[in-house]
Amino acid sequence: MVDFEFAKDKVMMGAERRSLALSEEEKRVVAYHEAGHALIAAVLPNADPLHKVTIIPRGLALGLTQQLPAEDRYMHGKSYLQDELVVLMGGRLAEQIVFGEDHITTGAGNDLERATELSRKMVCEWGMSHLGPLTFGKREEAIFLGKEFARHQDYSEATAVEIDSEIKRLVETAFARAKEALMKHRPVLDKIADALLEREVLEGEEVYQMVSEHTGVPVDKLKGPGRPSPSTEIV
Amino acid sequence: MVDFEFAKDKVMMGAERRSLALSEEEKRVVAYHEAGHALIAAVLPNADPLHKVTIIPRGLALGLTQQLPAEDRYMHGKSYLQDELVVLMGGRLAEQIVFGEDHITTGAGNDLERATELSRKMVCEWGMSHLGPLTFGKREEAIFLGKEFARHQDYSEATAVEIDSEIKRLVETAFARAKEALMKHRPVLDKIADALLEREVLEGEEVYQMVSEHTGVPVDKLKGPGRPSPSTEIV
Amino acid sequence: MVDFEFAKDKVMMGAERRSLALSEEEKRVVAYHEAGHALIAAVLPNADPLHKVTIIPRGLALGLTQQLPAEDRYMHGKSYLQDELVVLMGGRLAEQIVFGEDHITTGAGNDLERATELSRKMVCEWGMSHLGPLTFGKREEAIFLGKEFARHQDYSEATAVEIDSEIKRLVETAFARAKEALMKHRPVLDKIADALLEREVLEGEEVYQMVSEHTGVPVDKLKGPGRPSPSTEIV
Amino acid sequence: MVDFEFAKDKVMMGAERRSLALSEEEKRVVAYHEAGHALIAAVLPNADPLHKVTIIPRGLALGLTQQLPAEDRYMHGKSYLQDELVVLMGGRLAEQIVFGEDHITTGAGNDLERATELSRKMVCEWGMSHLGPLTFGKREEAIFLGKEFARHQDYSEATAVEIDSEIKRLVETAFARAKEALMKHRPVLDKIADALLEREVLEGEEVYQMVSEHTGVPVDKLKGPGRPSPSTEIV
Amino acid sequence: MVDFEFAKDKVMMGAERRSLALSEEEKRVVAYHEAGHALIAAVLPNADPLHKVTIIPRGLALGLTQQLPAEDRYMHGKSYLQDELVVLMGGRLAEQIVFGEDHITTGAGNDLERATELSRKMVCEWGMSHLGPLTFGKREEAIFLGKEFARHQDYSEATAVEIDSEIKRLVETAFARAKEALMKHRPVLDKIADALLEREVLEGEEVYQMVSEHTGVPVDKLKGPGRPSPSTEIV
Amino acid sequence: MVDFEFAKDKVMMGAERRSLALSEEEKRVVAYHEAGHALIAAVLPNADPLHKVTIIPRGLALGLTQQLPAEDRYMHGKSYLQDELVVLMGGRLAEQIVFGEDHITTGAGNDLERATELSRKMVCEWGMSHLGPLTFGKREEAIFLGKEFARHQDYSEATAVEIDSEIKRLVETAFARAKEALMKHRPVLDKIADALLEREVLEGEEVYQMVSEHTGVPVDKLKGPGRPSPSTEIV
Repeated sequence: MVDFEFAKDKVMMGAERRSLALSEEEKRVVAYHEAGHALIAAVLPNADPLHKVTIIPRGLALGLTQQLPAEDRYMHGKSYLQDELVVLMGGRLAEQIVFGEDHITTGAGNDLERATELSRKMVCEWGMSHLGPLTFGKREEAIFLGKEFARHQDYSEATAVEIDSEIKRLVETAFARAKEALMKHRPVLDKIADALLEREVLEGEEVYQMVSEHTGVPVDKLKGPGRPSPSTEIV
Repeated sequence: MVDFEFAKDKVMMGAERRSLALSEEEKRVVAYHEAGHALIAAVLPNADPLHKVTIIPRGLALGLTQQLPAEDRYMHGKSYLQDELVVLMGGRLAEQIVFGEDHITTGAGNDLERATELSRKMVCEWGMSHLGPLTFGKREEAIFLGKEFARHQDYSEATAVEIDSEIKRLVETAFARAKEALMKHRPVLDKIADALLEREVLEGEEVYQMVSEHTGVPVDKLKGPGRPSPSTEIV
Repeated sequence: MVDFEFAKDKVMMGAERRSLALSEEEKRVVAYHEAGHALIAAVLPNADPLHKVTIIPRGLALGLTQQLPAEDRYMHGKSYLQDELVVLMGGRLAEQIVFGEDHITTGAGNDLERATELSRKMVCEWGMSHLGPLTFGKREEAIFLGKEFARHQDYSEATAVEIDSEIKRLVETAFARAKEALMKHRPVLDKIADALLEREVLEGEEVYQMVSEHTGVPVDKLKGPGRPSPSTEIV
Repeated sequence: MVDFEFAKDKVMMGAERRSLALSEEEKRVVAYHEAGHALIAAVLPNADPLHKVTIIPRGLALGLTQQLPAEDRYMHGKSYLQDELVVLMGGRLAEQIVFGEDHITTGAGNDLERATELSRKMVCEWGMSHLGPLTFGKREEAIFLGKEFARHQDYSEATAVEIDSEIKRLVETAFARAKEALMKHRPVLDKIADALLEREVLEGEEVYQMVSEHTGVPVDKLKGPGRPSPSTEIV
Repeated sequence: MVDFEFAKDKVMMGAERRSLALSEEEKRVVAYHEAGHALIAAVLPNADPLHKVTIIPRGLALGLTQQLPAEDRYMHGKSYLQDELVVLMGGRLAEQIVFGEDHITTGAGNDLERATELSRKMVCEWGMSHLGPLTFGKREEAIFLGKEFARHQDYSEATAVEIDSEIKRLVETAFARAKEALMKHRPVLDKIADALLEREVLEGEEVYQMVSEHTGVPVDKLKGPGRPSPSTEIV
Repeated sequence: MVDFEFAKDKVMMGAERRSLALSEEEKRVVAYHEAGHALIAAVLPNADPLHKVTIIPRGLALGLTQQLPAEDRYMHGKSYLQDELVVLMGGRLAEQIVFGEDHITTGAGNDLERATELSRKMVCEWGMSHLGPLTFGKREEAIFLGKEFARHQDYSEATAVEIDSEIKRLVETAFARAKEALMKHRPVLDKIADALLEREVLEGEEVYQMVSEHTGVPVDKLKGPGRPSPSTEIV
């Protein structure tokens, strides 16, 4: 079973890069960043359940928080997407709360990009904003690869302003919810970060246990409905 | 006759994909989504008559509502197009009414895209909006395929604002009419969804029968003039 | 002579497609659409004289109204262009007057596109609008074919707004004149449509005769100065 | 000498196309259009001297007015350019004055395009407008041909509005001066047009004679400083 | 030494084209245009010292003013760039002052283009304007040639307006300073132009002598710090 | 050890180009420009520690200031980035303070470009501005090289205005801090520049010593946390 887990991690998260010599200071930043993602994944009702969190660099990432849904899903609900946005905000917010606004790092760049893209899809492709049940922009697909490249702007500047405003609203709402969650469970945040600095890898179960101890909520209740999503990594 | 029907469905809707393991929760969402399309197709006077509705995944779709016109048609009237817009809105609205605004799903993405494109054509190609009997944008066709790719913007930003506003008005009007229809016939919506969850496929005739029982209107009267259109699928 | 006429029609309008099975309802729409074009071509002083009108599908068109000028012309006057715009509006307006605003069809799409393009040329290439004796946009020609593809925008957004406004004014003026003409001669419109439904093809002379009987104006006087232009077809 | 003149005309203006069967009405329009160009070239002090005027179609043109400068020139003064703009306006204005605003034709399209381009260069390349001694837009040259294709916009929308406004001012000033010139010498305009309809070709000298008789100004005084420019043709 | 000078001029300014038959009037315009450049180069403190001025056409230019710095330089100061802008304005201004606003010519086109480009670099690449120490636009270089082609706009329309406004301010300030210089030393301007018309070429030393006689300032003092720059030519 | 240092400098900064004959005046400008960078690198707490500063031209640069972090780093904090912006401003500001606003040079062009790009990334990629935790613009990477080329604008003009404003704020804040630092330690600035003019190369240690003598702060305390960054060069 250990071998299977090892193989699966290598395929899903890339090979470990223990040779990367992060400074102690950097390791603390990464530990809190991942602890932020993990804690939020554990406490939000509609996000995918937390599977594992690590600060061993893998591929291009300096740390990883992995969520795994209970079963495969073929569509995503609005509340699931909103909670995933909050998970994505968790890394940057943990840095900000613990080290201060002046010491936030470039490490959250990839989280912010994914959050912005997800919000854009909620507004422009899935009709999940104040702009109503319309789509905006025409997909331009690379036929030979089946991969979407860009959306062609086919709307007015006035509509572009509204789209920007809705994307911002979705991300900032998620940011505020992430802040609330981390402030409320700050002791757990420290505990997760400390455990990561000590043991480098934590199973999701361990994090749920810490949250349960702090909140008094049983672990079963903490695990939300669970849906598939890629892991939230910090580059 | 059964073999013919099977062959026709395969050609028109793609092969069945019974192997897709949707969760019970997802199946309920798909059932109500398709029930929304089907109910509206059955009660609107100018939409194409309902032929069949299913929640067996086919091709890229998780479910399908198929409308078939009484005979081939070579032009489309404004009232027909307006009613088809309402049918397209039916899936998303059923989800919203039954599961709540927070649980609308990504599954309506394709419906919204088609409704937006159809509205754009009504405004920009067929002179069916407040903007009057003009066309907007120059078609750019891929000569070798005969397929239209994009429309080149040849108008001012001020006109672009008016076009966006008219497209939005057409879609939102259709949305409001869909809401009215589903609220009014909510018991039939539940009945169709339940039947779909039980038997997976319903003939149009069965749906007309349910509507007739609920409204007291004879089936003949329910079937509108009927025009050809592709099926309304949920991805 | 009949053979010559047959050959000329085939070359100029495409082969007949009697196999297209239009419904009775569609045939009525096409008949009134073409009757609208034909009636206006017959009563406006500066449009090309009416040559023939038919509801037998040819090529991509479901019906055709053919105008033929008395002799070849090498330049076009503003009043000729204005009257041709009115002829182009005649099809859509006949549908609207007879069947109601809700039942206008996609069949007028090509007419609207040609009217918009003609108006654009009057404004941007021929100095025939309030914008004065200037040209707007640079022609981009495909050298190898000698065919004009697009005009490159070389003016400000403010000018683009004025151009849109002048194009709209030209088309809407033509629309209003078309409405006036069809309302005034409504009995003739019905007579032409009925004759088309019965015999499918009418010579221009027959239409002039109907107009003459209704207005008391002799046929000679009805025929305007006459200039060459392509036929006005409904797709 | 006659042979030389014939050869030079063929090279500079294209072969005659006497086979083009213009109607009497069209011939009158062309005659007045060319008379308008010719009269203005003869009375403006800084335009190139008038060499010849004809209504025999040549190449793509239905008529031609040819100006020839006294000697080759390597730079152009602002007053010369302003007067050439007035000559370009003369054709359209003659049509308008003689036949009325409703009967202006598409024949002036090429004149208007050239006037707009010339004005654009005065504003954007030669610093001859209220916008001051700057250039606007970057030239994009096709290296292999040495031919300028387009100017790349490298300025703001606000500047684009000012450029449009200055181009319009230059053309409209020229239009007003052309109107004044033709109104003042209307009898000569008729005389030139009549002579063209009768003899098809007029030497510049004949036109100067007519102007001289009407104004009392000796022919020598009429001929301005004279600079090279292409002939002003009507397509 | 004469041969060396001849060879250097041919390499730096192109071969002489004595065959170009400029009219007497054109020669006077060129003489004053170059005299304007030369006089300003001689009186401004930070411009490169004047080396030679000629009205013999060379390459594409009808006349040339050549400045040569005392030694090679590897950076340029703001005051040097400002003075070079004034030298570039000198040609157009001499035409305007001597022949009048209506007789300014197309010959200054190249000067205006270079002045605009230089101002744009001061604002967008070197932080020498009110817009502060930022750069605007991304350079797009043709890798294979190492030659800069265009700057890609990566800023808002609002910033574009400010850039246009700063470029205009820089050029107009230089224009006003050029006007002041030429008005103040008008007798020297005439003297240089007369000498050019008589002898076609003047050494910089001769011009400095004329300025010294008129102002009483010794020649040594007139020569500024001197920096390298291409010659200021009139096409 | 000397050979290693020589080899490392050649690889990191390019070969020396002692043949470039800068004038005495230019050498002074370069000395103060580099002294400006060096002094700020030495006094700011979060910038990388100063390693070496030189006015021997290398590669395309006329002088170089080299910073070396204490150890490799894999992420950058906001305060580090802010301090590096101030270091980049130091060269231009030294020129301005010592020689006056009119004598700032083109030599700072590369510094300004890098500062603008760094600020853009803080705003658009790393969520370090008032615009919040979103990204703006879609990266377009050249797949075959893994090199980022440009960011595609996928936001409204209104957002573009906000982005420009935040970039400007970041650069101007850095500019003001650089001014404060140089004004406060002006005597050290002169001392570094004089030493550079005399000996051409200074070790970082020497600069720290000068700052320590002037401020009374021990050298250890001056050296900030230290992070890797490329050298700040003047072209």
